[in-house]
Amino acid sequence: MSFVRMGIVGIGNMGSAHAKYLIQNEVPEAQLTAVCDTNPEKREWIRSQSGDSVQFFDTPESLFESGSVDAVMIATPHYSHSELAIKAFRRGLHVLVEKPAGVYTKQVREMNEVAAQSGKVFGIMFNQRTNPLYQKLRDLISSGELGDLKRTIWIITNWYRPQSYYNSGGWRATWAGEGGGVLANQDPHQLDLWQWTTNMLPKRLRAFCGFGKYHDIEVEDDVTAYVEYENGATGLFVTSTGEAPGTNRFEISGDRGKVVIEDGKLTFWRLRISERQFNKEYNGGFGQPECWKCDVPVRGVETGHKGITENWVSAILHGTPLLAPGEEGIRGLQLSNAMHLSAWLDNWVEIPLDEELYLEKLNEKIEASTFVKKSQCAKILDVRGTF
Amino acid sequence: MSFVRMGIVGIGNMGSAHAKYLIQNEVPEAQLTAVCDTNPEKREWIRSQSGDSVQFFDTPESLFESGSVDAVMIATPHYSHSELAIKAFRRGLHVLVEKPAGVYTKQVREMNEVAAQSGKVFGIMFNQRTNPLYQKLRDLISSGELGDLKRTIWIITNWYRPQSYYNSGGWRATWAGEGGGVLANQDPHQLDLWQWTTNMLPKRLRAFCGFGKYHDIEVEDDVTAYVEYENGATGLFVTSTGEAPGTNRFEISGDRGKVVIEDGKLTFWRLRISERQFNKEYNGGFGQPECWKCDVPVRGVETGHKGITENWVSAILHGTPLLAPGEEGIRGLQLSNAMHLSAWLDNWVEIPLDEELYLEKLNEKIEASTFVKKSQCAKILDVRGTF
Repeated sequence: MSFVRMGIVGIGNMGSAHAKYLIQNEVPEAQLTAVCDTNPEKREWIRSQSGDSVQFFDTPESLFESGSVDAVMIATPHYSHSELAIKAFRRGLHVLVEKPAGVYTKQVREMNEVAAQSGKVFGIMFNQRTNPLYQKLRDLISSGELGDLKRTIWIITNWYRPQSYYNSGGWRATWAGEGGGVLANQDPHQLDLWQWTTNMLPKRLRAFCGFGKYHDIEVEDDVTAYVEYENGATGLFVTSTGEAPGTNRFEISGDRGKVVIEDGKLTFWRLRISERQFNKEYNGGFGQPECWKCDVPVRGVETGHKGITENWVSAILHGTPLLAPGEEGIRGLQLSNAMHLSAWLDNWVEIPLDEELYLEKLNEKIEASTFVKKSQCAKILDVRGTF
Repeated sequence: MSFVRMGIVGIGNMGSAHAKYLIQNEVPEAQLTAVCDTNPEKREWIRSQSGDSVQFFDTPESLFESGSVDAVMIATPHYSHSELAIKAFRRGLHVLVEKPAGVYTKQVREMNEVAAQSGKVFGIMFNQRTNPLYQKLRDLISSGELGDLKRTIWIITNWYRPQSYYNSGGWRATWAGEGGGVLANQDPHQLDLWQWTTNMLPKRLRAFCGFGKYHDIEVEDDVTAYVEYENGATGLFVTSTGEAPGTNRFEISGDRGKVVIEDGKLTFWRLRISERQFNKEYNGGFGQPECWKCDVPVRGVETGHKGITENWVSAILHGTPLLAPGEEGIRGLQLSNAMHLSAWLDNWVEIPLDEELYLEKLNEKIEASTFVKKSQCAKILDVRGTF
């Protein structure tokens, strides 16, 4: 195989963006051969982009069975990611799913099991893992430069969305349509990077959500979550779509200093000796370990969506290690599910969370929903630079 | 009265610092005429500083009854602040108490009542209210420039203390000696500024404390508190004495923008129109209110402890309004008490808090204490630049 024949399932905001760079041959080892959408108008759209070189299917199953593709990207609404990925694996296809991996961990766990059995290459569109800032942070932590972690605080409140965003699709920001709000739609990247850079998942958390606090929606648009890790460290995740201009600041402190990522910049304050050692040995009352503010080079460029697609294609053809293995999608989703559950129960939630209980409560929300959107239009929004 | 004859009760870390600037006549309208300490060695110390111009008493009562003072500063251990202030008011003296106002709100409420009945001038040593940064923030909020507040986050983790600090006095960081840890000793300024700049107290909170997490002490040295305000805003207060270098960053967001105070600098991002208005009127899906990063002049100098003393003296002589009225000390203390109580109960605490319940639980901690300090020395630490 000298190139991968690729299909895209779902030609919405993200699927159409992926289709465009593939059609323009920006991923040389991949060729877009087929797309699928349940909306027949998308047939015209793909023809306008690629002439007759890309086949159009109106069901995912017909695309999977067509023999025209080796691999598929799943870019449908959140609920169907796991189900469609499972079908594709069963038909022997490699799969790249859009984020989130799914809506609830039970379905994603099943997808992961089928993926593992299939032996196919399974990726997830965590394009922010290609950002050199987070790669450098992960490096500083995994190499021990920061020492044992003590605290992580991510304030990610710059996901501002006005009401018209939510009105742009009837499925948006509903329990039945997306299975959540800012946690399900905007935050999957940060929830993933939070656990990926630190290589730690909390053992329990306590979350506080505002549901429809700033918008006429039924799901959460404002969240504060407090977490506790196995090693004693604590953390905070603060997010909102109701604040402007908002903040994106990730602070991590450890026994050997502190890192802050803010305004596209990583700053590292390094302690000359470990704080735990200083604490034991220093006799002067007031005082603290000598601290150096270090200029750490952060090299490379963020290759984004295309970078993830290229890496996945290269894994299929050459066995290149995946930057974002699909089975890791469950990790951030688990945090999101646990935050919902904690807010619903007004109580602690242990991690791994009780998947059956979460699904039961989610279904209650879906069934109890009386929410009717005053939908203004169902159009493709221009998402360049936003996702 | 052309000047105030002043006494200081308690010649420890803070009392001796106050004595020094008064002896050097740096507050021209005040004259230090008497001090008191239960440690007779302090008699020599005051003589070495001032010759025979300052009388020494070995009990607060004898100082209060001496007729040598019009006004007293109370700089004793925390528990006795309220009790001694009450005695001083009852003897017709003006009072300036060191922070915190007391250890539990019940005793402080009694002090406030006696102060009000006395008609005397009652101040509290909230010296950080003299910092022009926080004065400017208070101005921006009270004048409506920030609009209705949505979120307050104070990360104040740069109160690093090594074990030897705690070992420097047997009373330090014990329930019986200080009635708390970082909240009782280091944070009273930030707890006060948090409520003073925003002019809001939460209606309820949920706090998570590490007791003796980073040190061999029985009280809290690590706290994360989540709060909810009456208007729907939420907030966080994060503090520790176990992190280095730590952070001091106060972020406040409102309907008209955001302010961050960090690294001795105030930054204001101003929205051209209200976010709530934009949310209603904007039809474009993605988009947000136009935002201006504004250079706001912050003028004036932080006059610190001496500034608070001067202002209180001027209030006594000339009726100048107090920058830090004593009866406001209860506001920050209530937050600190509520954080302890929430952590002890592992539950929400409403504000105003149940003062009887708090006192009952505090007394349980004191009685259950089996903590024995390996005290290295009981010396006066040099606190310049630290409090």
